[in-house]
Amino acid sequence: MERKKTVAKRSSLKIAGSSVPRVDGAEKVTGAAVYTGDVDLPGMGYAKILRSPLPHAKIVNIDAKKAEKLPGVYATLTRDDFSGLNARYGAIYKDQSIVAADKVRYAGDPVAAVLAADEMIAEEALSLIDVEYEELPALTEIEEALAEGAPLVHDQWFGKAELRGSSYGAPDRFKGTNVCSHFGYARGDVGKAFNNATHVFEDTFRFPKVQHYSLEPHVMLAHYEQGHLTVWSACQDPFGLRDHLASIFNLPLSRVRIIVPYVGGGYGGKLYVKAEPIAAALSWKARRPAKLVMGVGESFKTVTRHPARIRIKSAVAKDGRLLARECEIYMNTGAYADAGPRVTQKAGYRALGPYRIPDAKIDAYCVYTNTVPAGAFRGFGAVQVAWAYESHTDLIAERLGMDPVEFRLKNILKKGEEYTPGDTPVDCDLKEGLLKVAGALDWKAKPKPSVGKGVSVCLKDAGGTFKIAGATVKMSSDGSVVLLTGTVEVGQGSKTALSQVVAEVLGLPLERVFVAQLDTDTTPYDVSTSASSSMTVMGLAVKRAAEDAKKQLLDAAAQVLGCNASELKLADGKVVGKRGKDLSYGGVITEFFGSKAGEIIGRGVYRDLRTKKAALGATTTFWEVGWGGAEVEVDSDTGKIRLKKYVSVADVGKAIHPIQCEGQDEGGVLFGLGHTLFEQMVYEDGQLLNPNLVDYRVPNFGDLPEEFSSFLIENANGPGPFGAKGMGEGGLLPVASAIANAIARAVGVRFYELPITPEKLWRSLESAKKPR
Amino acid sequence: MERKKTVAKRSSLKIAGSSVPRVDGAEKVTGAAVYTGDVDLPGMGYAKILRSPLPHAKIVNIDAKKAEKLPGVYATLTRDDFSGLNARYGAIYKDQSIVAADKVRYAGDPVAAVLAADEMIAEEALSLIDVEYEELPALTEIEEALAEGAPLVHDQWFGKAELRGSSYGAPDRFKGTNVCSHFGYARGDVGKAFNNATHVFEDTFRFPKVQHYSLEPHVMLAHYEQGHLTVWSACQDPFGLRDHLASIFNLPLSRVRIIVPYVGGGYGGKLYVKAEPIAAALSWKARRPAKLVMGVGESFKTVTRHPARIRIKSAVAKDGRLLARECEIYMNTGAYADAGPRVTQKAGYRALGPYRIPDAKIDAYCVYTNTVPAGAFRGFGAVQVAWAYESHTDLIAERLGMDPVEFRLKNILKKGEEYTPGDTPVDCDLKEGLLKVAGALDWKAKPKPSVGKGVSVCLKDAGGTFKIAGATVKMSSDGSVVLLTGTVEVGQGSKTALSQVVAEVLGLPLERVFVAQLDTDTTPYDVSTSASSSMTVMGLAVKRAAEDAKKQLLDAAAQVLGCNASELKLADGKVVGKRGKDLSYGGVITEFFGSKAGEIIGRGVYRDLRTKKAALGATTTFWEVGWGGAEVEVDSDTGKIRLKKYVSVADVGKAIHPIQCEGQDEGGVLFGLGHTLFEQMVYEDGQLLNPNLVDYRVPNFGDLPEEFSSFLIENANGPGPFGAKGMGEGGLLPVASAIANAIARAVGVRFYELPITPEKLWRSLESAKKPR
Repeated sequence: MERKKTVAKRSSLKIAGSSVPRVDGAEKVTGAAVYTGDVDLPGMGYAKILRSPLPHAKIVNIDAKKAEKLPGVYATLTRDDFSGLNARYGAIYKDQSIVAADKVRYAGDPVAAVLAADEMIAEEALSLIDVEYEELPALTEIEEALAEGAPLVHDQWFGKAELRGSSYGAPDRFKGTNVCSHFGYARGDVGKAFNNATHVFEDTFRFPKVQHYSLEPHVMLAHYEQGHLTVWSACQDPFGLRDHLASIFNLPLSRVRIIVPYVGGGYGGKLYVKAEPIAAALSWKARRPAKLVMGVGESFKTVTRHPARIRIKSAVAKDGRLLARECEIYMNTGAYADAGPRVTQKAGYRALGPYRIPDAKIDAYCVYTNTVPAGAFRGFGAVQVAWAYESHTDLIAERLGMDPVEFRLKNILKKGEEYTPGDTPVDCDLKEGLLKVAGALDWKAKPKPSVGKGVSVCLKDAGGTFKIAGATVKMSSDGSVVLLTGTVEVGQGSKTALSQVVAEVLGLPLERVFVAQLDTDTTPYDVSTSASSSMTVMGLAVKRAAEDAKKQLLDAAAQVLGCNASELKLADGKVVGKRGKDLSYGGVITEFFGSKAGEIIGRGVYRDLRTKKAALGATTTFWEVGWGGAEVEVDSDTGKIRLKKYVSVADVGKAIHPIQCEGQDEGGVLFGLGHTLFEQMVYEDGQLLNPNLVDYRVPNFGDLPEEFSSFLIENANGPGPFGAKGMGEGGLLPVASAIANAIARAVGVRFYELPITPEKLWRSLESAKKPR
Repeated sequence: MERKKTVAKRSSLKIAGSSVPRVDGAEKVTGAAVYTGDVDLPGMGYAKILRSPLPHAKIVNIDAKKAEKLPGVYATLTRDDFSGLNARYGAIYKDQSIVAADKVRYAGDPVAAVLAADEMIAEEALSLIDVEYEELPALTEIEEALAEGAPLVHDQWFGKAELRGSSYGAPDRFKGTNVCSHFGYARGDVGKAFNNATHVFEDTFRFPKVQHYSLEPHVMLAHYEQGHLTVWSACQDPFGLRDHLASIFNLPLSRVRIIVPYVGGGYGGKLYVKAEPIAAALSWKARRPAKLVMGVGESFKTVTRHPARIRIKSAVAKDGRLLARECEIYMNTGAYADAGPRVTQKAGYRALGPYRIPDAKIDAYCVYTNTVPAGAFRGFGAVQVAWAYESHTDLIAERLGMDPVEFRLKNILKKGEEYTPGDTPVDCDLKEGLLKVAGALDWKAKPKPSVGKGVSVCLKDAGGTFKIAGATVKMSSDGSVVLLTGTVEVGQGSKTALSQVVAEVLGLPLERVFVAQLDTDTTPYDVSTSASSSMTVMGLAVKRAAEDAKKQLLDAAAQVLGCNASELKLADGKVVGKRGKDLSYGGVITEFFGSKAGEIIGRGVYRDLRTKKAALGATTTFWEVGWGGAEVEVDSDTGKIRLKKYVSVADVGKAIHPIQCEGQDEGGVLFGLGHTLFEQMVYEDGQLLNPNLVDYRVPNFGDLPEEFSSFLIENANGPGPFGAKGMGEGGLLPVASAIANAIARAVGVRFYELPITPEKLWRSLESAKKPR
């Protein structure tokens, strides 16, 4: 693996921009770091979930009495325990209940739960719960769900009734279908453009169902006591989780406290409420703490990425200019909507790719099936559509006989152009990155037989919700600082990078900055750790908080020294004045407060503003771009794909921590290799066949590209602190299409669905050999 | 017991001023409330302390090897483990070390400690530690310590060398003595006044060594890991504790985190660092959490009130006017200074009583002995001197043949007069309270034989340190609020009263205000929970934080509604506008942030200002006054004292929670009954004889006054929120002198030392019967 990066411009930054040792490094390598699974409370019980064996069934009867009587069982939980609770909840629609109420909707759907003195007793108790089901026909695929007369996964219609936010839902015509949300976007006159165009090309792509596969499965510990609920959870959006739980338990937000220890990977799978209502309800019923630790198999049955079917039709001028595009996107959201309507909206919005397309029409549909719910997942809808549009791009070039890079350069958006009217103009040079990829691949060089090169350029706005982030910088009387931030350290390195921002602004050594435990009672509000946005959005809030503290420190120093604050500056951890009277920060605070006491508290806030002009209500904070290039060699006898080279380019504005940025970019690529070459949740008769570490294959170190480069573009032009912009998802977006394009150019086989396995490739090669 | 109170003036307050149910009530009566002892951590060890059996000895040798090898022992701690630590610490002087370094200085002095898998193993391990002592002569009493050629408790001189703050310490002439601090104050020409006065009276009083006797002994749990120390402690000053531990372990303040769960009584005994360094050092050495739970006997060997000897000499004019006073005060601070120098300073400053005395000279000395260290204790030096000066007041009146109430009325300070020049003028009507006590006692009525009445009026400034308090009010998107405050709920009801302040300002029901866990990482700085000051000082910070939140809420509402904030007000939990467009707080926040998200964070700070004019550098925030009156009947045959009636009056400015105020006032009186009639730590040959619940007698319900009234004066003129002022210590101050004065008037026996036991009284009565 080779590592390259562009040389950052010389800057006056001392800590931000350096690959300092991670502040959580020692803790993590020594095993001292506390994850939710490490938190135990006195009197705590262990929770287990009884899951439906059937993909779709009515619950005729459920009886937990035998389980309840088993010695060591603290509580059972079924639909009979909902009295006093608002049992229904959901990320967008309230289409879930704590455990199944009327029906089960997928194999794995929680039907009941128990809390017991240990996990063995809990398991035994599950076996004592009697459930009588009346089986119903089950839907696995989008086509089945859309078929005329298909059974309804949800009898209730959520499309209009229970919206949270105004831009989700579906028109009334979908009532009585399995479509639970629709996103539509149109500009210009697509029909006319298609009629007038020289070329019209149409392709349909499919994306498989894949799982987040965090090293740490879902884990939570809930303690309900005296009208107060405390939950430790490995989650990415503690404030959102607080909302859901407050609603379920009829509590003010101030009586629900979410604490987030370290999180062992999230990737969106730990966004929005998951099994926390089960743990909390068990604690509420048993009046003791309830710990729920899922195994890997259970995480597979909790949330996945959306399988998708994407049809793209493009009108192209004789000279290769894109004129119009129509996209029809179906997202399979499984048994419950979860974030599906939002993912569908984003998949739709992001479907045009980084190209100048005058007329466009997009329809994206979110469809219920009897499979594991699909929700947020790194890339959030963009992964599926990017696979489609950048495969389609190469197909157009191929059909036109144009070089794929040349075709892209002709159509690619320029910096400052608008993706859609009213949204933030494109904030980086898309051409620059594409040329860098092409250069790194030695694009013009003729490859050997069975070797092919492919490129891909993908564009993604910065996330699904209005962003609000607050941060507090608390400087004590020795000048050391505690940072309160709601960004969850999921492994991405936020604790380190945000500490660097504070240290930079305040001129402190990094070891004098400490990030406090995330706790919704005390940590300022943050929407969520998602959408590659923390370094920009929370980064700004943190920078503002540090600047506020700096201002107060200078004001206090001016008062102590009897001068104007403007005469003072911070340097080397001291307040330096014109008169040569230097004071340590601790000295300023001690003098100001009259004793070694007191503190300075700086506050910073970031808030998105709505705009009527933007298609989604708010303009994107920044554009995240992923450029990728692959060189593959195919063994025509076996179908084996050798990934000789992969080049990734990320525009990071300014890398606060370059090694962490590269790590995230490389990690994104590896993630992409998973769904490109290996991963797929396989269903048969409504049953998931491979929810385990053996049958579900994720990339391992042996699967790394033989030559692997990650380039960071640093023009310090991002909206975040010191010119940073978000990254971390970009690397993931181009992988599938770049590799598929390379394979097509190597051996002439075009894939329209993932994963691309040696077997599939071999079969295609074999069938190509046969006379038609 | 009869309960009376003055009728509060009608006010517009809705929640502040009402005796609402305590917010921590349900938790506490159900046992759900978490105290430090309830906190367990995985892998935690149990700590035990080996205490010196000798009152004074050199440690010739100490060897913990055998203990270390005992299976189940995680770590031992002796002076040999200090490498890498700053082992010396102390509230004022660094005269203590984590465990004994060179000498032991009192019977009970920690010599070593162990951490083990359970308490039994820890106890056994203690027995395996070999210590070789070389015994030294021991000092118990002030006189012994001051005697010529007395052995030195500390060979090192701290009087100058290691001051923390400028107003403690002693002149060089005390070097080589056991006097560790001196407080001197003088005005006018006392010598001249004594020469010219008609009368000069001199009396000497003694106060015994008593213990705080909190229901919850000292308990702490420390976890040192990766350069970060977290301590859960039942302490009253977490930020101060953080200072000490950061210094011992060479850590920035931001790497020491103190969490304070509920505290089961403090009374000053949990102020300043206690055994936390031992628990923390064990954790530091063993690399696992260390829990240290003391028994009652160990708390007796940790901290006490200062025994004192107080000589008062007064010059009085013919007409009964006080002209001059000289006070000589010796405070026995035991083996380590702890807060002794500060207590001594305050005892000195508070020694003049609530009287107009033109010329004054005060000398107060803090003296080391080989007894349990004495530190902060409810009343902080004022208890000892009030016992003396209000006994002395009655003695003067008796000698002048004046009625004690008349004599007091003649000399008592008027509202607005200065206690010492430059300090805050007296802020209440001392006469009003005195007349109320006299009236309640039916003072003029002639009592039956063997029955006597006594009164006492005591004055106390509001505490020993510059006050700094911060608070944060965090309003979530449903309008409910979390309050962050550093005031420790020690049972005094601060959580309830401070919540009332927030609820009042924001017009919220109390159940929508929740007080966050106190945690130095996240809670704004507060000096300490002490000196009756929380309701005034933190109360103001909290009120300001709530007002800041209110202002932000109104500004946000104005922006949402498109009007001026001045057109809006808060009423019934809503923002009400002129245009009739009402919005819930949650509605305002949701509209302002564009979704059900975001929050409003209000901040409030209180900071004392230094003044050169004030004798102690800062003026007092308020004056706390305790008025007490007692009626006793003495059984001349047995010496039994029947407390027929006790009247207590407290000026609370405005009672935020009247029942809690009465509870504190009554509790103060009961506390006072302890040292007046029962309590004394008895020493023999340097050994404490009664450190247990059987031999050390505290008042119980059978000891309550037969008729017991607590009057609250509410003129809403205090500096705290809604006119509140501090209370809680005042009730305690007059008890001993009021009862002693009543006994003197009942049977003619005057006590100069406490406690006044039936045996002592009987002996005095018997000896009075004998011919001289």
